[in-house]
Order: sequence, then structure tokens, then C-alpha cells
Amino acid sequence: MTYCVAIRIDAGLCFVSDSRTNAGVDNISTYSKMYTYEDPTRRQLVVLSSGNLATTQGVIAQVKKDIKKRAFKNLANLETLEDIADYIGEISVEHQGKHTGGGKPFEASFIVGGQIRGQKHGAFLIYPQGNHITTSRDTPFLQIGESKYGKPILDRMISPGLTLETAALCGLVSMDSTMRSNLSVGPPIEVLMYSLDSYNAQHRYRFEESSEYLRQLHAAWDERLKEAFGNLPPIAWSQTWDQPMGQER
Amino acid sequence: MTYCVAIRIDAGLCFVSDSRTNAGVDNISTYSKMYTYEDPTRRQLVVLSSGNLATTQGVIAQVKKDIKKRAFKNLANLETLEDIADYIGEISVEHQGKHTGGGKPFEASFIVGGQIRGQKHGAFLIYPQGNHITTSRDTPFLQIGESKYGKPILDRMISPGLTLETAALCGLVSMDSTMRSNLSVGPPIEVLMYSLDSYNAQHRYRFEESSEYLRQLHAAWDERLKEAFGNLPPIAWSQTWDQPMGQER
Repeated sequence: MTYCVAIRIDAGLCFVSDSRTNAGVDNISTYSKMYTYEDPTRRQLVVLSSGNLATTQGVIAQVKKDIKKRAFKNLANLETLEDIADYIGEISVEHQGKHTGGGKPFEASFIVGGQIRGQKHGAFLIYPQGNHITTSRDTPFLQIGESKYGKPILDRMISPGLTLETAALCGLVSMDSTMRSNLSVGPPIEVLMYSLDSYNAQHRYRFEESSEYLRQLHAAWDERLKEAFGNLPPIAWSQTWDQPMGQER
Repeated sequence: MTYCVAIRIDAGLCFVSDSRTNAGVDNISTYSKMYTYEDPTRRQLVVLSSGNLATTQGVIAQVKKDIKKRAFKNLANLETLEDIADYIGEISVEHQGKHTGGGKPFEASFIVGGQIRGQKHGAFLIYPQGNHITTSRDTPFLQIGESKYGKPILDRMISPGLTLETAALCGLVSMDSTMRSNLSVGPPIEVLMYSLDSYNAQHRYRFEESSEYLRQLHAAWDERLKEAFGNLPPIAWSQTWDQPMGQER
């Protein structure tokens, strides 16, 4: 499994991805799921991938090849982020069609985000079927992979006005929650913060399993949550049931 | 869908359940998923249910009927909590066998917990197949239904030494996270706190959709989380990638 999240705020974009892949619990490997393309001062793109590893590797290899041979459509020349999402969707569907896996398709999902000079920054989630959705002000984040464990903290915290740093922390806490609850999501954790109109991704981090920072963050968050519980309103004892239940004898 | 959780701590047991059932998003109803049986000073039992409503209603109706007609096996005479879990598993499998739903079985899961005089308190999760698991000191809670959204907060917070009140608050926050992320889980929310060796469940609450307390809890938790983020260690800027990625031109 995998967990990747992209957050779009006014100040830019944050991307967080894990690096664990597995085919059964006894066949676990480490692969980065974050691919970046940068054309300094003109475009910065980040692709996150989830799903069948053969499919995602095939798609990313194709994306790289198309850039190299200056194909008609490639990450360097497509005009908009939406065109890029369409393009990745097309390649993904094509690759999935090649190997049908005896009925169970080798599906993959992608997130692509970034900024092209003169345009707004943005992010798109590309479904296995090749179609895509983008963020809105009400839903400023996209998730692929094992998304449920890490969703509540994003639902509560992410709003367009956050700083990049806070958004990245939310992404990391969301990742930490997912790792704790699901073995198939694991480090190294990659984080990329893209600052609006910078056209480069200077703030990239890769946190290994042994990372002292990840350990600190995990411990600090646990500590803060325990404090938070101490400050919640006590259960309203006066409230009673509308109707007594059960009690059959 | 449904979300129910049972928490076993040294001080007793907490049960939290929602009341929404749905058959598609345009067919939503309200049913309690918490059934209690009390024999004051001798036994207190709580059953939570999740899954196909016809199955869970059929199982609970059978449980009530067996008590009434003093069947050979019923909630009033079975000797241990484990026997009770076996018994509910048997009825559940039998009911599921009656209606096979054209290939898709009408599955149901249950949690049963409580205390029988002279024995330890406990809780069991009964799978649709009729077998069951119980809690441990490392895993002091059980969940049925839409469990992923609400699991991280329980994983972080629940330990056997908590007070009943704190455990119930954790259960409510876990429920709040689930409701926020999944439309098919909704109020009224029922909470029951069972205090060790009390053999009664005097602390029962039912929070309606309009509940001022639920609103306050939701707002307070959001507030506390935002504060918590302000106190996290900032991302370790000095850390760099092991290897530069992408950047193909």
C-alpha cells in the first residue's frame, strides 16, 4: 500500500509521500513515490504515485522517456496542469491495458501538482480510469492510497490560509497517523514544499526510518494530544436518554 | 454504514455507537445500535451491532426472545462473556444463512461487552463468520463498521490506566472524526460507561444531532488541535535528501 497527500494553499503546495511497497506482508520494499520535474524559473512539477508498482514505474519511465525524446506531449511542453493530468491519465490507462492481471487490473492512481509560469499553482488527482479531479477552497487537499486514517486531521486543519510549514506539518502528522495504524505505509517519508511563484522546490526532505525528527514529531504530537484531552469539556452528565433501552429480563 | 467502538480499561468499559443506517445515500434512517441487558448486582451486558440492518435486527430480536422464553442459552444464563460471544456468533451465522442476498451475503458484526458477577469485565468482537476476538492490554479497544477514520486517535490515546471519563471522551472524538469524514455515520450518538463491579450502567447518554455538548466538543477539539500544531517541532531544515531526484530535462 501507499499513502500520498498533496495540499494546495494560497502560499503554495505541499507534497508528502511514503516509500513502502508490498506484495503481501512478507515482500516489502522501498521505492520513492515522488517524482519531480523542474525547469527553473518556468515550471515545477511533482508527481506522486500509488497502486501497482509495475504500472507506476512503467508510467514514470514513459514520462521520463517522453521528456528525453521531446515527444509531442511531455511534461516540458504541455501548456497547462490540466493537460498534464490528461496526459498522465492516458499513459496510465495504456499501461494498465497491457497487463490485465487475470481479471484483477493492475491499477494505479497519481497526483500531479506544481506551477507553470504565468498560471496558478494547482494539483490534480488522476484516477485509475484516467479522469481527474482538482482541489477547491473547501477541499484543499488530495489523497491517494491508504487515505482514511490520515483524513480526519486534514479535514480539521487544512485551510487555504495556512503557512507552508504548517501545511507540511499537517501532512506529516497525517502520515504519522497512517503509519501507526497501517503497517503497509512506512518510511522513508518524503516532503516537498513548493512556494508560490518560485518555480523551484528547494525545500525537500527525506526522513529515514531512523530520523530523529520523525521520532520527535511523533512524541510531541502524542504529548500535545494528551494535553488537548485535558482541556475538553467534560461529558454533560445532566443529559439523559430519550428513552430507556433494553433491560429486558 | 456504522461506527461502534468498545474500550476496555482497568476502571471499566466504554461503549460508543452512532445511529445512522443507509441503503444508498438517499435512504437514510436512524436506529440505535446499542442494546443493553441488565440484571442488577449480577450482570451487565452491552451489544453493539454493525452491518446489514435486517440481520442485526433479526439477531437482536432472537436474543430478546431467548431471554423471554428462558431458552437453554440466553444472555441471562450463559456463564461467561466468551460463551455469550459464541452464542451471538451462532445466531448471527444462522440469520445470515437464511437470506443469501444473491451471492452478496447480508453480513453483520457485533461487539459484546460487560461483566458477569465474580468475573473480569471484558469485550468481544464477533466477526460475520461467528468467531471472535477480545481485547488485550496492548489493544484495549475494538471497533466495528467504518473504523479507519477514528482509529489513529484511539491508537495514540487509549491505555488501560485512563479514567472512564477520558476513555469516553476519546471514543467521542473518534466518533466525531468519523462523522466528519464519512457521511454514512451520524447522530444520535450513544455513549455508555460501565464502572467496574457496578453491575449497572447508570452513565448512559444519547446525544442528538442538535446536541449543544457535541457541538462544543467538536469546536473545542478543533481549537485544541490547532494549538497543538503551534507547539510542534519545526521541520528540520538542515535535513537534505539522500539523493537528488528527478530533474530530467
